[in-house]
Amino acid sequence: MDKARLIVADSETCADMLYACGFHAPDNFIYFAVDDDEYIVVSRLELSRAKNECHNHVQVLDIDSFFADKDEKRDMKALLLKITSQNPDYSWEVPQDFPLVYADFLRGNGVILNCCDDKFFPGRIEKNEAEVDHIKEAMVKTEMSMARAHQILSESEIQGDLTLIWNGATLTSEIIRAEIEVALVRVGAVPFATIVACGKHSAEPHNSGSGSIYANQPIVVDIFPKVSATGYWGDMTRTFVKGKAPDVVKKAYDAVKDARNKAKAYLKAGVTGTEAHAIAFDSLEQSGFKTGQENGIYHGFIHGLGHGVGLDIHEAPRVSPMNKSELNVGNVITVEPGLYYPEWGGIRLEDIGVIRDGLFDCFN
Amino acid sequence: MDKARLIVADSETCADMLYACGFHAPDNFIYFAVDDDEYIVVSRLELSRAKNECHNHVQVLDIDSFFADKDEKRDMKALLLKITSQNPDYSWEVPQDFPLVYADFLRGNGVILNCCDDKFFPGRIEKNEAEVDHIKEAMVKTEMSMARAHQILSESEIQGDLTLIWNGATLTSEIIRAEIEVALVRVGAVPFATIVACGKHSAEPHNSGSGSIYANQPIVVDIFPKVSATGYWGDMTRTFVKGKAPDVVKKAYDAVKDARNKAKAYLKAGVTGTEAHAIAFDSLEQSGFKTGQENGIYHGFIHGLGHGVGLDIHEAPRVSPMNKSELNVGNVITVEPGLYYPEWGGIRLEDIGVIRDGLFDCFN
Repeated sequence: MDKARLIVADSETCADMLYACGFHAPDNFIYFAVDDDEYIVVSRLELSRAKNECHNHVQVLDIDSFFADKDEKRDMKALLLKITSQNPDYSWEVPQDFPLVYADFLRGNGVILNCCDDKFFPGRIEKNEAEVDHIKEAMVKTEMSMARAHQILSESEIQGDLTLIWNGATLTSEIIRAEIEVALVRVGAVPFATIVACGKHSAEPHNSGSGSIYANQPIVVDIFPKVSATGYWGDMTRTFVKGKAPDVVKKAYDAVKDARNKAKAYLKAGVTGTEAHAIAFDSLEQSGFKTGQENGIYHGFIHGLGHGVGLDIHEAPRVSPMNKSELNVGNVITVEPGLYYPEWGGIRLEDIGVIRDGLFDCFN
Repeated sequence: MDKARLIVADSETCADMLYACGFHAPDNFIYFAVDDDEYIVVSRLELSRAKNECHNHVQVLDIDSFFADKDEKRDMKALLLKITSQNPDYSWEVPQDFPLVYADFLRGNGVILNCCDDKFFPGRIEKNEAEVDHIKEAMVKTEMSMARAHQILSESEIQGDLTLIWNGATLTSEIIRAEIEVALVRVGAVPFATIVACGKHSAEPHNSGSGSIYANQPIVVDIFPKVSATGYWGDMTRTFVKGKAPDVVKKAYDAVKDARNKAKAYLKAGVTGTEAHAIAFDSLEQSGFKTGQENGIYHGFIHGLGHGVGLDIHEAPRVSPMNKSELNVGNVITVEPGLYYPEWGGIRLEDIGVIRDGLFDCFN
């Protein structure tokens, strides 16, 4: 039996769908491939835009063209049945996140449908130069917004209670986040839950931060926007201190920087995610920063060293103990060791780059 | 066999997950419910934040607590097998968009897993007053950013070639979009693909718009941000003309306004989506605006009258010919008739409100 391929998803949140057709749409639609022909099937609402925007090698079909009878029920299930019935000699391969409701329905109607063993588009993990350029473009925007955060902290003044004054008001996480995101939307990038976490908030890697920013405490700024026009993401983290860093913070910062630099120097095609993570982990331990837990709260280096970035913000390959396979040329990954301690906060430094033949080609 | 319930998703893009636990997280995690107990299972990276942020009635479990053996493989499949094995006397109900890869895996290991017939959380469709307030809050932010677009158009000046000058430069879709999104991010709302579509671009309902804005042509502005803190969305569309509207545009605008007002007056609990759509459709036809197609391009009123809004931007109930069921008290829906003609562009007016016992309680 020949293999056909099928996706049901929107292309705003499903990177495979955007990769397949290049057409940005907020609601579920269908992509399918039979032999060498690729199609998307869209509603009349999207038809003309889809024809203009989708990849040249993908043909755009009108949902209405599948339903001769005006009064026929025309929901997603009915449409999927039409498409699979018109191609009866094929089994259908679908992505791992294919919605169960449609899989059960099609199988119940005798369609042979198989879930992909691994990635639906293995090519996504190894970026071509055009994709590398899209991610570099995202990083230029990201760095520009990081510079804005730096500028605000530089301009701010420390008060007697160690809060900061900027632009006539007490400086907060919310104000810095808004200024970062203003810089991003002005250049066509969509910001998501930008992290500006001060002091104890920074001890939780994904705490967005809220309230006053204080002098002499770490301020973790993690910015990860999506460029609207291309769908590719940037991702960058810096840690600042306004005023004077306490000794432990300074020591932790130096340890993280050292771990990051060692990992970057070690990375190249052929290194596994596990190995790269271990370089950073061991470096942090050697600097005196242990990982463990106390009363159910973890401290130290409590996440993986990095992750792939592309049309998803977190995608393969992971750079962590979970990934025992080798990194390959074209993998775009973050390198972001961090240290987190409930007593004083966190430090994280995150760069991004592409794996080349004997090196890690860092974008920033 | 008793029923347990299970979700595997992130809560940034999966509204069911956010509804279930109230915890915002960008990566896949697990929610499950056994008898009256509800749990989420998260990694050490998220553990302390999850404990602080998730609903009181949901208990937070540590992934590591499921794996006694340090060297045991600990991916999502292994974790799901642990959870289902610890509750052997249950069948598992999952949402319609449950990832096929985990369904096939669990079933292959003897777990009884059933896809939900309809909504996983039927309560999501009928908003309580706290949810209504969250959506009203989103609409206040949305309206404020719409006022910014209006202000820019008012301040702009028409040039001899019918382009507009604002703030010393030629006014474009990109500039107005950036100004709208700046206003949104300053108040903690995330903008997505905001539409500022002029002239022929506005003939495609989801065309974001690009390039110069022109006098005497329709400018469709559709703004739909998500409030970061709550996850609830706003949605609003207005159509502007700078200068003088051509007769057909003026007539179409009046027809759409009339259709919107008739639909809003007609809407109440007990009306079906089909009926509400027909009120607007018939009104537009009576005003002389026909729906049809020419050379494969559709024109007229080419989408549904509206859609539910909540933790998803497009959710149940649809207000369209596809939905033959009755609207109920607590449904928050948009009312957004539109007219689209490739020759001159489009008009869309979109309000949002909640279905009450006897009326449509519009928020704007």
